[in-house]
Amino acid sequence: MIIECEQKELMRGINIAIKAIPPRTTMSILECIVLDASGDVIRLLSNDLNMAIDTVIDGTIVEPGTVALDARILSDVIRKLPDNLVKINVFENYATQITCERAKFNLMGRVTDDFSYLPKYSKEQYFDLSEFALHDMIRQTIAFLAEGDIHPVMTGECFHLQDGTLRVVALDGHRIAIREQQVDACSGDMEIIIPGKTLNEIVRILGDDAERMVRVYIDDNSVFFEFERTKVMSRLVDGKFVNIAYILESQTETKVVLGKREFYDCIDRASMMIKEGDKKPIIFDITDEGIEISIQGMLGSMDDFIEVDEKEGMDQKIGFNPKFLMDALRVVDDEKITAYFINHRSPVYIRADDLSYQYIILPVNFVS
Amino acid sequence: MIIECEQKELMRGINIAIKAIPPRTTMSILECIVLDASGDVIRLLSNDLNMAIDTVIDGTIVEPGTVALDARILSDVIRKLPDNLVKINVFENYATQITCERAKFNLMGRVTDDFSYLPKYSKEQYFDLSEFALHDMIRQTIAFLAEGDIHPVMTGECFHLQDGTLRVVALDGHRIAIREQQVDACSGDMEIIIPGKTLNEIVRILGDDAERMVRVYIDDNSVFFEFERTKVMSRLVDGKFVNIAYILESQTETKVVLGKREFYDCIDRASMMIKEGDKKPIIFDITDEGIEISIQGMLGSMDDFIEVDEKEGMDQKIGFNPKFLMDALRVVDDEKITAYFINHRSPVYIRADDLSYQYIILPVNFVS
Repeated sequence: MIIECEQKELMRGINIAIKAIPPRTTMSILECIVLDASGDVIRLLSNDLNMAIDTVIDGTIVEPGTVALDARILSDVIRKLPDNLVKINVFENYATQITCERAKFNLMGRVTDDFSYLPKYSKEQYFDLSEFALHDMIRQTIAFLAEGDIHPVMTGECFHLQDGTLRVVALDGHRIAIREQQVDACSGDMEIIIPGKTLNEIVRILGDDAERMVRVYIDDNSVFFEFERTKVMSRLVDGKFVNIAYILESQTETKVVLGKREFYDCIDRASMMIKEGDKKPIIFDITDEGIEISIQGMLGSMDDFIEVDEKEGMDQKIGFNPKFLMDALRVVDDEKITAYFINHRSPVYIRADDLSYQYIILPVNFVS
Repeated sequence: MIIECEQKELMRGINIAIKAIPPRTTMSILECIVLDASGDVIRLLSNDLNMAIDTVIDGTIVEPGTVALDARILSDVIRKLPDNLVKINVFENYATQITCERAKFNLMGRVTDDFSYLPKYSKEQYFDLSEFALHDMIRQTIAFLAEGDIHPVMTGECFHLQDGTLRVVALDGHRIAIREQQVDACSGDMEIIIPGKTLNEIVRILGDDAERMVRVYIDDNSVFFEFERTKVMSRLVDGKFVNIAYILESQTETKVVLGKREFYDCIDRASMMIKEGDKKPIIFDITDEGIEISIQGMLGSMDDFIEVDEKEGMDQKIGFNPKFLMDALRVVDDEKITAYFINHRSPVYIRADDLSYQYIILPVNFVS
């Protein structure tokens, strides 16, 4: 195999393919990026058994062929090369020479026989949305996924498609994040659970271009993302997702509208009074005048007060884990947020008027 | 004690004082910053037993007094406050209230009786140089200090003052960094060893203003830096520094002038071929045409070639630890560097024409 391609373009491809390289593994082929110039185009491929990537880069195929190269060494070498044409020359025993200007690297390549390429998949079930929309839906929900040993369905986000509306749900038993969005096209209703790990990598590969579309296919317990010249495959999480319908139908008692930045900063300051693992809640005392905010932590106590733009319904006194509130406020783009309360044993709903996002957070008990 | 001061000014002082807070300790008073408003000014103090800081901030003393507050909690709280006037009110039992706008924090303060203030010191022995000069001298040598278990004198930099010239030397047994600079004033000749840890913190506190002066006092096996409204004390390293005079007097055989950036980038690329702990040298083959650069590492091999602006003397073939060369090239500000070689068993000298800096690096043996 002999190929030629610009350093920047090669690096762009490596930065995509490296997302499916596992941090450590005993199977050394998984640590490799495959360069495949056996067809009409140059493809970079990777596969960590849960997720696989296949991306096309610009370049010239001088002599067709394939080679597998250690992803980290390849990435380090290409990153340090000058911004100029790079030539990759693979000899018969897979010894690989990378040349750029007067620099010449010799690396040991590997045969690609034991590498798993993306399987063929059915294109019957699919939906389309823009890179921007998919990026945003993941970004605004991913922090709500459960960490550690927990029911497997909670390690993934539920993608629920009904009547052309995609609802993405992430939850961890204490809180729920929901994002809704019209899809641009779809084959019909469906519900799948995509692993959080996959979504974290997808967000890092996806641009946030509102014009460029992503097509998502579902086949054989896997999901396939196709965008630009990249394909990403991931296994789905097995199982039935948690039913959250009954939570969404609750009648709320109190509505409050306030500035997001001010609210966030105040909770952020209060959280300085608790150590990691400290379960002390932040307490909101909501009256017509505004919200009295207080916390009694291991490190000290804080009181603060913020004005609200609007308050409807009865007064409330209710406590929350400050981290959970901050996770929600951090990803909301609106300057004003609306929060709905029921009572001190029921969750708060932070939601957009059009329900495009909803963050539902359970309260923490406190002795008042 | 009651004091009032602007959030930004208070934070500036905390950021200085926190440099002498140890990462962990069993003596909880060492984790505190002392706020001292017992005199005419507000002082922030810290002391980790090796190093002590005393800095003055702007503010109003409403009621004189002192208090010790946990440095990390204080820093976290003040950093999160709005950019406005902060009031610190200490009650009789050292309970401390910090107020800013409507936010009110209650922290547990401590009595300052068991805190060690800076001792009085003699002002007989001293030298002056600008913040900029001191900052630069440390920055350009500190990477050459030995790490880990090593002779104690190698953990500090030698400050040698003779005839109005300050020479700073850092070495680790494989390499030496030397910086020379005229001082602006001094009491006479002296030689001291200042711990690397102190210098690392000093660099982070010092500005790089060429107009502002630092006065350095030596007394009773300690050094005292005075600049702006800050005083830093540090213990000195005991012992006699390594004699390097015989190394400086060597006759060199080959002189090479070349572009620093190009040379650095080339060594950086070559270092991609070796893993951490791999002792493989980078080999320079110096001829009239330029330098042929090669490395045979565990991960592969590289060849490259760089042109030189000037070459005098015999050809050389000599191997080095690439990290050591990069540490030197990273801190040199000149675009062109001059390197002097003797033979493949003798060090390279990278030095300024006026000897304001010298980096001396021992070669690595290789079979050619």
